[in-house]
Amino acid sequence: MDKLSNILKFRAQCPFLGGTKTSTIRSLYTRASPQYPTLNHLTEKATGCPVMGPVLTTRSRQIAANYASVAGNVDVKKIHEENGVDLQDASTADIQRCPHASAALTAARMAQELASAQTQRSKVTKPTNPLATSTKPAGCPFHQAKTEAKPTQPKEEGFDYEKFYGEELDKKRADNSYRYFNNINRMAQKFPLAHTGKVTDQVEVWCANDYLGMGNNPVVLETMHRTLDIYGHGAGGTRNIAGNTAMHLALEDELAALHRKDGALVFSSCYVANDATLATLGTKFPGCIIFSDKMNHASMIQGMRHSTAKRVIFEHNNLEDLEQKLAQYPKSTPKIIAFESVYSMCGSIGPIKDICDLAERYGALTFLDEVHAVGMYGPTGAGVAEHLDFDAYMLAGKTRERIPRSVMDRVDIITGTLGKAYGAIGGYIAGSSDFVDVIRSYAPGFIFTTSLPPSNVAGARASISYQKEYIGDRQLKQINVRNVKSKFLAKDIPVVFSFAQFSPGPSHIVPVLVGDPMLAKTASDTLLTNHGIYVQAINYPTVARGEERLRFTVTPRHTLEQMEHLVSAVDQVFTQLKIKRVQDWKAEGGRAGVGMIDPETVTPIWTDKQLGLLDGTAPKMLRNSEKGIVDARAVGLTREKFNNLLGPLMTAGMKTGGVFNGHVGLGHPSTNTLDQIPIAVAAAA
Amino acid sequence: MDKLSNILKFRAQCPFLGGTKTSTIRSLYTRASPQYPTLNHLTEKATGCPVMGPVLTTRSRQIAANYASVAGNVDVKKIHEENGVDLQDASTADIQRCPHASAALTAARMAQELASAQTQRSKVTKPTNPLATSTKPAGCPFHQAKTEAKPTQPKEEGFDYEKFYGEELDKKRADNSYRYFNNINRMAQKFPLAHTGKVTDQVEVWCANDYLGMGNNPVVLETMHRTLDIYGHGAGGTRNIAGNTAMHLALEDELAALHRKDGALVFSSCYVANDATLATLGTKFPGCIIFSDKMNHASMIQGMRHSTAKRVIFEHNNLEDLEQKLAQYPKSTPKIIAFESVYSMCGSIGPIKDICDLAERYGALTFLDEVHAVGMYGPTGAGVAEHLDFDAYMLAGKTRERIPRSVMDRVDIITGTLGKAYGAIGGYIAGSSDFVDVIRSYAPGFIFTTSLPPSNVAGARASISYQKEYIGDRQLKQINVRNVKSKFLAKDIPVVFSFAQFSPGPSHIVPVLVGDPMLAKTASDTLLTNHGIYVQAINYPTVARGEERLRFTVTPRHTLEQMEHLVSAVDQVFTQLKIKRVQDWKAEGGRAGVGMIDPETVTPIWTDKQLGLLDGTAPKMLRNSEKGIVDARAVGLTREKFNNLLGPLMTAGMKTGGVFNGHVGLGHPSTNTLDQIPIAVAAAA
Repeated sequence: MDKLSNILKFRAQCPFLGGTKTSTIRSLYTRASPQYPTLNHLTEKATGCPVMGPVLTTRSRQIAANYASVAGNVDVKKIHEENGVDLQDASTADIQRCPHASAALTAARMAQELASAQTQRSKVTKPTNPLATSTKPAGCPFHQAKTEAKPTQPKEEGFDYEKFYGEELDKKRADNSYRYFNNINRMAQKFPLAHTGKVTDQVEVWCANDYLGMGNNPVVLETMHRTLDIYGHGAGGTRNIAGNTAMHLALEDELAALHRKDGALVFSSCYVANDATLATLGTKFPGCIIFSDKMNHASMIQGMRHSTAKRVIFEHNNLEDLEQKLAQYPKSTPKIIAFESVYSMCGSIGPIKDICDLAERYGALTFLDEVHAVGMYGPTGAGVAEHLDFDAYMLAGKTRERIPRSVMDRVDIITGTLGKAYGAIGGYIAGSSDFVDVIRSYAPGFIFTTSLPPSNVAGARASISYQKEYIGDRQLKQINVRNVKSKFLAKDIPVVFSFAQFSPGPSHIVPVLVGDPMLAKTASDTLLTNHGIYVQAINYPTVARGEERLRFTVTPRHTLEQMEHLVSAVDQVFTQLKIKRVQDWKAEGGRAGVGMIDPETVTPIWTDKQLGLLDGTAPKMLRNSEKGIVDARAVGLTREKFNNLLGPLMTAGMKTGGVFNGHVGLGHPSTNTLDQIPIAVAAAA
Repeated sequence: MDKLSNILKFRAQCPFLGGTKTSTIRSLYTRASPQYPTLNHLTEKATGCPVMGPVLTTRSRQIAANYASVAGNVDVKKIHEENGVDLQDASTADIQRCPHASAALTAARMAQELASAQTQRSKVTKPTNPLATSTKPAGCPFHQAKTEAKPTQPKEEGFDYEKFYGEELDKKRADNSYRYFNNINRMAQKFPLAHTGKVTDQVEVWCANDYLGMGNNPVVLETMHRTLDIYGHGAGGTRNIAGNTAMHLALEDELAALHRKDGALVFSSCYVANDATLATLGTKFPGCIIFSDKMNHASMIQGMRHSTAKRVIFEHNNLEDLEQKLAQYPKSTPKIIAFESVYSMCGSIGPIKDICDLAERYGALTFLDEVHAVGMYGPTGAGVAEHLDFDAYMLAGKTRERIPRSVMDRVDIITGTLGKAYGAIGGYIAGSSDFVDVIRSYAPGFIFTTSLPPSNVAGARASISYQKEYIGDRQLKQINVRNVKSKFLAKDIPVVFSFAQFSPGPSHIVPVLVGDPMLAKTASDTLLTNHGIYVQAINYPTVARGEERLRFTVTPRHTLEQMEHLVSAVDQVFTQLKIKRVQDWKAEGGRAGVGMIDPETVTPIWTDKQLGLLDGTAPKMLRNSEKGIVDARAVGLTREKFNNLLGPLMTAGMKTGGVFNGHVGLGHPSTNTLDQIPIAVAAAA
């Protein structure tokens, strides 16, 4: 790779190479020439250069001749004999085991192939046998005895795919990035518990992205059961062919309303939504440039790679760097600024308002990924963009009215997921009607795939409706997060605070620094085995080397006792494994914000007032003995509200058809009254 | 584009341009230089060429001077005055309306920018005002009066994104490829009926990909209800972080067993599976070349685009063409042959065995997409590859034993969907352990996305188990397909028969040629409105222009009466809209196989013997009055078999834990006996 980086460094000096993308050069460099297997594509191309071509060939002939003379040396012959190699019966494998012979062979072949590639460009088409030339390693007995007999042997063997797979996996194992998936089965009726591969082994889940426990919400599950009975399992087609239902349309309408945009479009996942949208826009806008925050998620990075747009990376949350980069292009050049609201691995929050200002100044579109924020920020759960104008949107309530010049209104494109806080599956984009229609009409990742099943879609919509209605889950989540963070800090356990410029304050993400991949894995395994706590270690490449961490997800449904158990267990494991604490990092000058930022100065984005802490309306932390109360009553649902929340299935047309009235499902009794809804959280753990 | 094709033609003559991918050149050519907006990137690069640079600048100065002299001509001034343009008050827009002035302005700017780009390379960094030079169009009054005053005006306006969206949508409308989605809600209990946006408007669905009606199978739905109650809605994380359940592992084991491979991996969709797998392999194998059937699905095309591999397209199902292309590369070069078993738009079947032969001869991997075949071909529903050794696999039964040298065993990689015949959601790959592990470890589209919900995963596995157990759905589907095809042909309605070489025979796909996009849309609309039949028109770009068609999906659950209604309705619509019949196409020399192939000579891949037609074991076509019998009894389920089919949830561990024994779900009664399972298909339509 050193050679490749040299090529990349010097390409600017070559008038044509300078215009070539890094990815193209890398690909040319790492790919073997089909015709000349010892050369990479780039070297083959270089033979056509009037300056470099002859130099390359001459140099290689010299190297080949040197090897040949070494291989021909009597000492080498002696070594072979001393090692018991019978020169007469030496196989190709034997030859390859001799470093001199093998190097000579390769060098000779390379010199020949370089010359041959150059000759072919001069229209002399007949290639000669690479080994039957004056550059062959003259003195080596192996070559004379064997190799000339089978000159084309290596070309007749197919590529060893299985060997290649094995080597690729070895690489992963060698750098500790090979992943072992834990068998974790989250139990709806015992949230946040899960059983492992054995049903009786139950553990507390502390790292799922079911951020609010909506995956087992009774309104959601009831909606899904009903939808399954009425509309079955799969959608049965793409959105264009038989897979476009009233549920899909209603969900998209719900999402557009949530973000107060004209339109929304649902995808298989937000990975696909980000990928397809950035790839489509980046390719369609003529000369488009995408400005991407350095910490952006893999799905956005893929989307940019899949577009023909130029990608300019700016330092994480660094407005000065972004502006300096934006300013290098005319205002009329199409630009997209792609960034996130909550960065999931460090918990920092993007400076959305400031980025909107820059976008206006430099004529850019804003593309905001709210994947780790929707459902959890803002009075109706629309995300951080909504949260930044909390009071105005609280006043606006559940209407779909826009608030002109509010942050959310200024963001052009919002993408979000249904698979995290909403506890469902799928992803989406929201924005102007024509923007949504362009993606709907042009993005292959949307067009050519089976749409999501009706029951999941209806469940997702029920979840959004529920969270629009009820702010308590959002408040209690943040209250619990504060509780766990402060308990960790009281024990000097290093919670990572974002140290990025302009980050307005920490989010719900609770990353704890470990700083070593094996240690992080061991800590995770120890917590699981000895303490019944499941938290996955986050290692490279998801985070930078040396910044390995445990990333805890605290939900509104974790009880006070569970939080205390967590902190005590982590404290014990830190002691047991001698993992560094805040003071240790501080002594080393700090890392990943730990020992660099005074937690006291960090301003949480949810204020005390918003959490209801000032007027006493804040929800109370649950106790183990009270788990059963997380039900419709605690949520403050009246029968009317519940029926309203079941709306996802009840479009105007469906109400008219009376599908629900008196419906008896597939072995599933009609649940006409609120009292009949069972409680998802049954008993204490 | 003519100019681009010229560049592509001549690039081989330039030593460096010759090594550049077409996509890179296209992107350089279509993208404006950020610094010099009138130049494209390629032209800007060309200024650095010692030969082309000075030529370009000189030539552009000449063109600019010519325009300037034309624009300065008194005749032009006269034309302006005669058109009532007030020269003193002419705006920039006015100037742009004058072809001479506008061309002169552009030419002058381009000449200046070319010179400036060249100068900058010679380290003179300060660019001059492009309009304040000797090449400015001297005699035109517009330029003197106005343009010099606001030289940078065009740079200060941002790109009009909304206008651009509008134009893109207009293009779709102009070529009739703009899509309007029908609101179609397939009702589980009235399959194959669906209601439209209004619940009381019910139509027969004739184009869904729920090929066997498994979307409402009682075993599937019962499994899903139970899983929902126990494990809730979303998976709550990626496979690596909290989203890897026993259900996912069991499904992958089931799929590996189905295809008798070592491993399988589940994705959000088969679009993602194909895209991620081809992109990963094509990038990882050094110098990989992917040989792709011309009719391959969009997901494979995207996967190849997203890889760095070279793509070689071979004619549809044409083995000679494929071999000729394979033979151009050394055997040692890594190669993938990507193809399908059943091509969904024309119904042809890939020559799998012959392609395996070629792959062995030329050292290639075989990548077979069985998306439109799994569940529907082979004694256990493993697809066409299994079907080709029907008797051997029938004998092998539901074991996972390999049959060495059978076609399925020789295919390296099989991809399939859970969203079509299995009536669920998701896609997968199956192959060797290390292959699967490489994709699991390296493909971002697998790694960085929330895994599928447990209930869908368990439902998909139930569906696969069910179809492994019961061949009747597959048989009846093909019997019904034969029935509809022969009834269409009896009325001279043009069923498209694959006319590709080597296609062993037609599949379950029933495409009917219309041959005009507007006519196809009108036929679809008329069938829906006047006959209650929903079949989507398939237009360009999904099929070639002039080959527009209606594509019918005949399931085992369509009744005899519904099939008769369909044929009669299509016949009426053909007469009403004067759509060409077989004889009309024959008179024109045939199209898309219609009027070119005698249907009598077409050999269906399911033989009479396999369908049970010879020994009288074939299932009978349903009648409207008998719809209710499509239940557990018809399927021949014993209680033992049913419990066996519910296995997806009952892994060894779970059985031990007794989760199911006496379990009462969320308002959902325990169903311990077969008799309590309600029938999904309740009443006649």
